[in-house]
This record gives sequence, structure tokens and C-alpha cells, in this order.
Amino acid sequence: MRYELYYWPMIQGRGEYVRLALEEAKADYVDVARGKAGMGAMIKMLDANKGLPPFAPPFLKAGTLVIGQTANILFYLGARHGLAPKTEAGRLKLNDLQLTIADFVMEVHDTHHPIGTSLYYEDQKGPAKLRTAEFWKERVPKFLGYFERLLQASGSAYITGRKVTYVDLSLFQIVEGLRYAFPKRMKTFERDIPMLIDLRDRVAERPNIKAYLASDRRIPFNEEGIFRRYKALDK
Amino acid sequence: MRYELYYWPMIQGRGEYVRLALEEAKADYVDVARGKAGMGAMIKMLDANKGLPPFAPPFLKAGTLVIGQTANILFYLGARHGLAPKTEAGRLKLNDLQLTIADFVMEVHDTHHPIGTSLYYEDQKGPAKLRTAEFWKERVPKFLGYFERLLQASGSAYITGRKVTYVDLSLFQIVEGLRYAFPKRMKTFERDIPMLIDLRDRVAERPNIKAYLASDRRIPFNEEGIFRRYKALDK
Repeated sequence: MRYELYYWPMIQGRGEYVRLALEEAKADYVDVARGKAGMGAMIKMLDANKGLPPFAPPFLKAGTLVIGQTANILFYLGARHGLAPKTEAGRLKLNDLQLTIADFVMEVHDTHHPIGTSLYYEDQKGPAKLRTAEFWKERVPKFLGYFERLLQASGSAYITGRKVTYVDLSLFQIVEGLRYAFPKRMKTFERDIPMLIDLRDRVAERPNIKAYLASDRRIPFNEEGIFRRYKALDK
Repeated sequence: MRYELYYWPMIQGRGEYVRLALEEAKADYVDVARGKAGMGAMIKMLDANKGLPPFAPPFLKAGTLVIGQTANILFYLGARHGLAPKTEAGRLKLNDLQLTIADFVMEVHDTHHPIGTSLYYEDQKGPAKLRTAEFWKERVPKFLGYFERLLQASGSAYITGRKVTYVDLSLFQIVEGLRYAFPKRMKTFERDIPMLIDLRDRVAERPNIKAYLASDRRIPFNEEGIFRRYKALDK
């Protein structure tokens, strides 16, 4: 079966967590909206007025299933491609961790859009500076400190043990994103999360991920995505 | 098995979605932190430095399992208590919907705390007004309009059909919360979501929910929770 991933074609965004899982698994997939007429197909599915259409991209078409919400897609893929533990307890724990990452991703987004997504960053620059200061003072230490603590407790290569999971891939993306968006702040902060940085390096060296990152399937970071580099928000 | 729910004892917050599911199911549970020494027990579990402790309340102890993240807890409970479809496709769809509700709940929270949770509302009142205006102009119509559309398409009593699910219970809570926090704005907006309001009424009349709402197990809305009534933010 060839999966169809539907996501905005110009950004990594939330779709990237799914792309990383599909790539690590060497799954057969097409990134629909990046192809000709793909955007039209995506909008059509979102606008469907029967059944239960997805709320927003990303969503994954797997045969007759249409699965929305990043963590939900990963929950589905993880079980099928060896990117999650096999036990129910293990799968629930992994989903728990991914949802915590999802919360963090939303907070990253709000550093540059604390007032609303329908306004430009330039129109909310003041609040964005305040929110970003809070983010780095309170939220980054809380969230990344949590994952650092789990890695210390695990004592293993990956967050739940010796096998890579989709949460490890997502944590790689978090570190990459913060490095892109806040190079100065992140440089200082990395001293506090040595295990997460090791994890990031370990994921980056995995053959399938390495090949993906070097390919043009990996969209470069840019100022339309979740992680944006705005000088005024970095120190 | 008696479930142990761990959540802040003074607020409905995110714990309420779990409480509603446990109450509808007439599950045997204890709301740990509302009892003597409960807060201490909760903090101890969060601070555990082995295994994979939860990131934040709410979390549910079910035998040896400790499950964090609201949607994840509901995913677990839904399958065990007839509050979710039995098929994998149905369960994934329901989880998808619940995660969309979770996103909305975070946006509700940010109406009064757009800059950060470590600051008082009074210290971010200006941005809060801006964010709330955006929220009602863009986000409420988008999110609630989506669920209204699903109810229209379903043509059934509940969101996925004739049986109540945990998503229906959560949508009840969303309507109740918006009514509490923004009575004026909501009064006007309700005209646009007649099916959701019907759903709210249907849930409120379910015997177990009705009994719960009338009991002191239901914590009243207040200005420490997610839904807060601030005059300056209502019209």
C-alpha cells in the first residue's frame, strides 16, 4: 500500500514529524500536495461535506483510512513500522510523550504568533518578544528538561530503550528546529541537555534519516513554518 | 479495578474531560488530589526519577499503568467503557477529533494567558484582549464550525452516530466552558451552532452526567481554570 501524506507543500511544519517516520521506515508514500494538482486534492478532502473529514493538515490516507492529527498518524504508523513498542502500555506511553511534544510545538508556534495566526508577525512583534522571553525562561527548560530527565533515567540510546521510536525522531526535529529559529539562545541552552543532543546526533546518523535530510524531499526551514528565525526574538 | 485520577483539585481544567468520561461510564475511580495527602502523592509521581513519569496532570493510574495526556487517557478509557467505536478506524477517528478539541482547549487558555502562564492575567491584559478578539473572530468559528458540520453530516444524535462517545462529552464541556467564560459573546454565537447546542443538551440529560453535574464532585468553574470569566474579555 502506498500512503498518501497531505500537508502544506512549502513547509516542514507538523507534517515533518510524519515525514521523518515514513522516511525512517522506508515506507512507500507520496507527499501529495507537493505534486501537480496536489493542493487541489488536499483542499477537496478538507472540504468534504459527508463523513468525518479531517480538521486540518497533516492527514494520512492509508487505503480507505483517512487519519488526521500528527500524533494520531504517528500512533498508527508506529505500530505498523516498528517505530513503537509492541505492548499496549508501551504504545500508550509513547503516545503520551508525542502529545507532550505536540503541546511544545504549539508553544513554539506561539512565540512568533502570540496574538493570532491571521495577523502578520510584524503586527504582533511586541507580544512576540514577551512570549519568547517567557518561552525560553519557563517553557523550554520545563519541556526539554523533562525529556533530558527521561533519557538520563532510561540510560539507553533512545527514549524508551535501545530501539528508535517516532518520539526520538520528533525530538530530533525539535532540536533542529530550535537551532534554526533561535541559534544564539539554543547555543547556550544546549549545555543543559547533553543527552538530548546525543539523541539528536544518533538520529541524524541513521542511514534512512541521513539520506532523507540530504534529499530534496526535506524542505528547508523557512519563515512560513513553525520554527522561524526572527532576529528580534533571538538574543 | 479502581482507577486513580490525578489532577489539580481546585479546577475542572483538562481533568474534566476525563472526569466526564469516568462519570458517564460509572467507573470506579478516586480523584486522588482532592483527598487528604493527595497532592503530595501526585507531586511524588511527577517527580519520580526512574521510569517514564508523566509530564503533567492529568494522569490516570490503572493498575500498573500510568497514562498521561488527556486525549491519551480518553483513548484508553473509551475502548474499555463503550465510549468509543470498537473498530480501529473508529478509534483513530475519535482520537483525531479529541486532539482537535485539545488544540482548541489550549487556544482557550491562551485567550487570558497569551504571553505566558508564569505571569498574572493582569500583567498581560492588553495582549489578552487582542488574542480574545482574534479567538472569537477566527478560531471559534473555525473549530466549532467544524464540529457543527460533522454533526450535520452525521444526522445522528452524537458525533459518530447513535452512541455517545468521549468526544461528545468533551464537546459538552466546551459549550459549558464558553458559556461560563464569555456569556455575551457565546449568546450571540450560539445561533451559528444549533446542532452543537442540541448535543450539549442531550449530554446534560444523560442520567450519569446529570447526577455528576448536580454532585459536589463537579468543581464549579472559576478563575483558576482554563475557562475564566474576565469582563474585559467578553463583549
